Amino acid sequence: MLVVMQAQATEEQVRAVCEKIEAHGLRAHSIPGAQRTAIGITGNQGMVEIGLDEMPGVQEVIAVSKPYKLVSRDVKPENTVIHFPGSDGAEDTIGGRDLAIIAGPCSIESREQAFAVAECVHRLGARFFRGGAYKPRTSPYSFQGMGVEGLKILAEIRQRYGLKIVTEAIDHESLELVEEYADVIQIGARNMQNFSLLKRAGRAKKPVLLKRGLAATLEELLMAAEYVMSEGNYNVILCERGVRTFVDHARNTLDLSIVPAVQKLSHLPIIVDPSHGTGQRNKVIPLSRAAVAVGADGLIVEVHNDPDHALSDGAQSLFPDQFEQLMKELRQIAAILHRDVPSQPAQPPRPQTAAAR
Amino acid sequence: MLVVMQAQATEEQVRAVCEKIEAHGLRAHSIPGAQRTAIGITGNQGMVEIGLDEMPGVQEVIAVSKPYKLVSRDVKPENTVIHFPGSDGAEDTIGGRDLAIIAGPCSIESREQAFAVAECVHRLGARFFRGGAYKPRTSPYSFQGMGVEGLKILAEIRQRYGLKIVTEAIDHESLELVEEYADVIQIGARNMQNFSLLKRAGRAKKPVLLKRGLAATLEELLMAAEYVMSEGNYNVILCERGVRTFVDHARNTLDLSIVPAVQKLSHLPIIVDPSHGTGQRNKVIPLSRAAVAVGADGLIVEVHNDPDHALSDGAQSLFPDQFEQLMKELRQIAAILHRDVPSQPAQPPRPQTAAAR
Amino acid sequence: MLVVMQAQATEEQVRAVCEKIEAHGLRAHSIPGAQRTAIGITGNQGMVEIGLDEMPGVQEVIAVSKPYKLVSRDVKPENTVIHFPGSDGAEDTIGGRDLAIIAGPCSIESREQAFAVAECVHRLGARFFRGGAYKPRTSPYSFQGMGVEGLKILAEIRQRYGLKIVTEAIDHESLELVEEYADVIQIGARNMQNFSLLKRAGRAKKPVLLKRGLAATLEELLMAAEYVMSEGNYNVILCERGVRTFVDHARNTLDLSIVPAVQKLSHLPIIVDPSHGTGQRNKVIPLSRAAVAVGADGLIVEVHNDPDHALSDGAQSLFPDQFEQLMKELRQIAAILHRDVPSQPAQPPRPQTAAAR
Amino acid sequence: MLVVMQAQATEEQVRAVCEKIEAHGLRAHSIPGAQRTAIGITGNQGMVEIGLDEMPGVQEVIAVSKPYKLVSRDVKPENTVIHFPGSDGAEDTIGGRDLAIIAGPCSIESREQAFAVAECVHRLGARFFRGGAYKPRTSPYSFQGMGVEGLKILAEIRQRYGLKIVTEAIDHESLELVEEYADVIQIGARNMQNFSLLKRAGRAKKPVLLKRGLAATLEELLMAAEYVMSEGNYNVILCERGVRTFVDHARNTLDLSIVPAVQKLSHLPIIVDPSHGTGQRNKVIPLSRAAVAVGADGLIVEVHNDPDHALSDGAQSLFPDQFEQLMKELRQIAAILHRDVPSQPAQPPRPQTAAAR
Repeated sequence: MLVVMQAQATEEQVRAVCEKIEAHGLRAHSIPGAQRTAIGITGNQGMVEIGLDEMPGVQEVIAVSKPYKLVSRDVKPENTVIHFPGSDGAEDTIGGRDLAIIAGPCSIESREQAFAVAECVHRLGARFFRGGAYKPRTSPYSFQGMGVEGLKILAEIRQRYGLKIVTEAIDHESLELVEEYADVIQIGARNMQNFSLLKRAGRAKKPVLLKRGLAATLEELLMAAEYVMSEGNYNVILCERGVRTFVDHARNTLDLSIVPAVQKLSHLPIIVDPSHGTGQRNKVIPLSRAAVAVGADGLIVEVHNDPDHALSDGAQSLFPDQFEQLMKELRQIAAILHRDVPSQPAQPPRPQTAAAR
Repeated sequence: MLVVMQAQATEEQVRAVCEKIEAHGLRAHSIPGAQRTAIGITGNQGMVEIGLDEMPGVQEVIAVSKPYKLVSRDVKPENTVIHFPGSDGAEDTIGGRDLAIIAGPCSIESREQAFAVAECVHRLGARFFRGGAYKPRTSPYSFQGMGVEGLKILAEIRQRYGLKIVTEAIDHESLELVEEYADVIQIGARNMQNFSLLKRAGRAKKPVLLKRGLAATLEELLMAAEYVMSEGNYNVILCERGVRTFVDHARNTLDLSIVPAVQKLSHLPIIVDPSHGTGQRNKVIPLSRAAVAVGADGLIVEVHNDPDHALSDGAQSLFPDQFEQLMKELRQIAAILHRDVPSQPAQPPRPQTAAAR
Repeated sequence: MLVVMQAQATEEQVRAVCEKIEAHGLRAHSIPGAQRTAIGITGNQGMVEIGLDEMPGVQEVIAVSKPYKLVSRDVKPENTVIHFPGSDGAEDTIGGRDLAIIAGPCSIESREQAFAVAECVHRLGARFFRGGAYKPRTSPYSFQGMGVEGLKILAEIRQRYGLKIVTEAIDHESLELVEEYADVIQIGARNMQNFSLLKRAGRAKKPVLLKRGLAATLEELLMAAEYVMSEGNYNVILCERGVRTFVDHARNTLDLSIVPAVQKLSHLPIIVDPSHGTGQRNKVIPLSRAAVAVGADGLIVEVHNDPDHALSDGAQSLFPDQFEQLMKELRQIAAILHRDVPSQPAQPPRPQTAAAR
Repeated sequence: MLVVMQAQATEEQVRAVCEKIEAHGLRAHSIPGAQRTAIGITGNQGMVEIGLDEMPGVQEVIAVSKPYKLVSRDVKPENTVIHFPGSDGAEDTIGGRDLAIIAGPCSIESREQAFAVAECVHRLGARFFRGGAYKPRTSPYSFQGMGVEGLKILAEIRQRYGLKIVTEAIDHESLELVEEYADVIQIGARNMQNFSLLKRAGRAKKPVLLKRGLAATLEELLMAAEYVMSEGNYNVILCERGVRTFVDHARNTLDLSIVPAVQKLSHLPIIVDPSHGTGQRNKVIPLSRAAVAVGADGLIVEVHNDPDHALSDGAQSLFPDQFEQLMKELRQIAAILHRDVPSQPAQPPRPQTAAAR
């Protein structure tokens, strides 16, 4: 259910409504909008009759028939923009006019490798750095990531280049560490319906990047985001990364039609992962262009200084000069859609601190 | 098998090789390239030993392991460009620098409707007109098209606007008529493996637009083109139109990754149908932009002057002003890829002839 | 629309209703049932008001909202049983208590091969013989079947063993010949939506075996049958043969759940093809058992006397002794479902006639 | 890698090989077979050279190219049979001659509901009871299960009826409790690639029932089992429960062909879940028959005393009398495959203990 407050409702009236809701054992989510505040109610099964519509400041009580509430544009018509304050007053955003370019290697393999890639993507204008410290691998015998050592390297990279860090958590334990070291907590495709992990991410203080599962419908993706939001974390970024179909000329089938579909139903930003979405380097560039042209809010793309020796996913990682060429093309396409891709680093690299060495 | 001739081989030498091949009951396809001529051999099961490699002018005889031959870049490294001479000396092409924009209604419903849409798309720069006279419908009780009356209306439209006509054939009988009245013979998705029809199209004198089947792999699409080419018609345009998957937020899942995949393996042009590929008007525009950004050689898109009263596929047809906006955006994206979208009609409408009235 | 006649309605009343329908330019399909006659009306778009409900003998006029009519149990509650009179008074059926076992090679390759397989399957109790004379092949360079020579061999096999012949037609021309030589006209999966061919099959005098397309929904399969029936041929046998999915451990994914789904909606018989449905000999036997256990009306299964040298589909053809073992198991499972699988040939082989030699 | 010991190798020799492996920082898994012992080595990336092939008792060292090792028949040719000792000396098994029938409600909703269903399925011969205490639901607002209270009810049911308890764990915390209260730890389809949970299950002392993910390939399913086994828990039961495809006449597409595919590659038992595999009561019975006919080692099926008021999955739960009819048919089909389905309870219900009341 959803309570829409009058435009001139006071903060006190909003608070009173929330208190009444919670007094009935339900949960109130106050969501301020440009015109008015809406209050989402979760925790109820179906309609509840608690006399909200007669409280002062309440305009309307709406029975929401769609299973998703907090993710919906019905609750919040304006796009969600997630803000990442920079150390020098500059600010990065996801969901605003700037496209978020999240680049980096599949896995953090060593300090040298990570810094080499970070130096490159920072110089070419990326504001976000990706790199896995915890890797969900199909085989128990494959490289499973550097763990907390990888997270520490990522934190050093933020310190030096001002890049915001995006990295995956695979369970409660790693999520706690990712929350501490990174700027965005990634939930991978295979965990999109790991509801226990989603709830934990919903209690985290950092934004969540939620990847679509390999066979997830649009509704399931939105409901997974709803799990995170229902625990109080409203900063969720959705990510299309290809689905599994009969098609055999690419590792997955990148479903770009989900971008306008999400944008119609939800206020959350949606980005695209063309690296996992295709699995092949020579398809990453054309599909990246297509993702920006379709209207995505950003890309998460694998770049490696030496793809041929990567411990994972080398075949889909771009060479640095390919990434440079791609950034140039993306900037031009973004302009047509009245979006921007930064062309300069937000800040020059800093000298390494003693702590980071 | 494939015979690669020397760069300086004479026409006579090429002819001699072809004659020897045909003397063995096989079929020779001489394919002149920029540097040299290649001769594809079809009709054999596996390798044949007929002593071609010692003939004058022959450089190499290659056993082709892939099941496709004539569609392959191994046989013809340069892109195939299909030429449509215009009445005023102007020429349209598919597969060259110009993107082919094929626009029009799903079905030809009446002379008035067809001319209204044609006037609009012609004015906005389209050079090709689509419109079904024979409609393959899921239900035997649905509108099945105007048949030869529809073809005659299409021929009038060419006469008046200089638009090249693209329309579907569904069997031998309709193919004969389409070949007579239209410029491009369309084979629909449901007939992609109607091999008898493909062979007939291969004996036609007009180019063939071959749509990918709903569950066709890349190899099956190329082999369907091979059927057409093996009968001697080398002017085939491939078309991605969405495949069937579990995804339920769009009628089909548009698989844009097939565009770079085809371009790597084959010299044939490939275009995209965002109308059938999504089934929803509000997704056609973003996916059209994406299709051009991914590198397609053109689009086939449904436009209707009055979509709400269309006899078929109204919900996916663009309004004229949406088509105008789309053409503007496509032009800008095409420029980034060093491609062009015409902005002006090739010729002004002509006065109607007495015959056409 | 559907007119349900009263139980005691006379033939004359039925005829009068049909005449009134046809006088309005529509088509009437009179379908006698055990209790009463129903009259399906086709050719109309939506409801028509022609005052049928007040005619004598009419009980009810039902607006059918489902797109299928003639295939529906609403029109005909009793199962359709297709009868094949035998030369010696014995009769084979499809859709009745006997399971139809249709066995034979993928392709007719030679008289010797065809007779060797026929002798075997006849001896083990099969009453129907399959074998392709026209083969729809992915590659134009693969063996395309023996054509009319193959049909003549099939006719000889019927003559000698009393086996009913099931073979595929791929276009109007071959359909005419198949109709002449065979007992059942097979329409292959790739032609399931070749609507021109379906209409032609609907005008044929022989039953049609209609295979489900690789990405066909239940509704599309039923509508394809509706195409055949709408032309007047009511003897249609549906066939599940596997659909295309992401699954890679079998050539196709056999969807046995379509059997109860069809049986709920339609009166038509449905059989299963475990050979194409799996593509691997070692899966054919277990999936054949499963198909009978799920309630299918029969199987169409590939058997070859020498699978390793088959010109097509050898890897999925059963050896004769495997077929023998399978028949034994099927008989036992059928009994649990109160169905029968014949254990003896219907007739001994006949001496070859002079004509057949 | 895999070390195959000689048939007459002593226990001491086996132990010496294991010690050498572990001295190299790898993990040794000794797997006694009927003829000889095999030792799987995990933890290595590729081949290792540690001189095992010259140790006494070693017959062969095999480099395993398939990514799965411990699940493979190469390591253990004989079927894995999981034993559940009964309180009265009777023993239940999964993977042996008896088919495992695991029946019960989707969720434990109350003590009354759970006991009513348990009484019924026990009386009709089921030896295993299913029922969710922790429910992974698509919506955060749906009933999430009774948690530990549900587990306590399940434990009472085992005490009273001797039924072995199968119930799902969704995270580390619930797994610990399920391990304590239940007999089999179920890992659901959505967690099939929750590798952190799989590893935890691999350290549990109870067998694991691992459901196939909605878009999981055969290899991914086997690799998920490998995760469990690589931690030392060798008692894994695989479960086919339908995959997600374009098919719309059933909630999922039950892929019975995976049963013979698994049985060829792996020694692990595989059962089928026709309830989730179809989602519709009227398809559960025919697909259950088919699952037994295809050769599965058992079924997990939802039965409810009052499906219309179930809190989850009511539409796919069998009524008690349907389950009775099903058990009768399964017994007959099992006999054809030389398998058994128990027809009598293993033990009469016991009086409730004071503790359980």
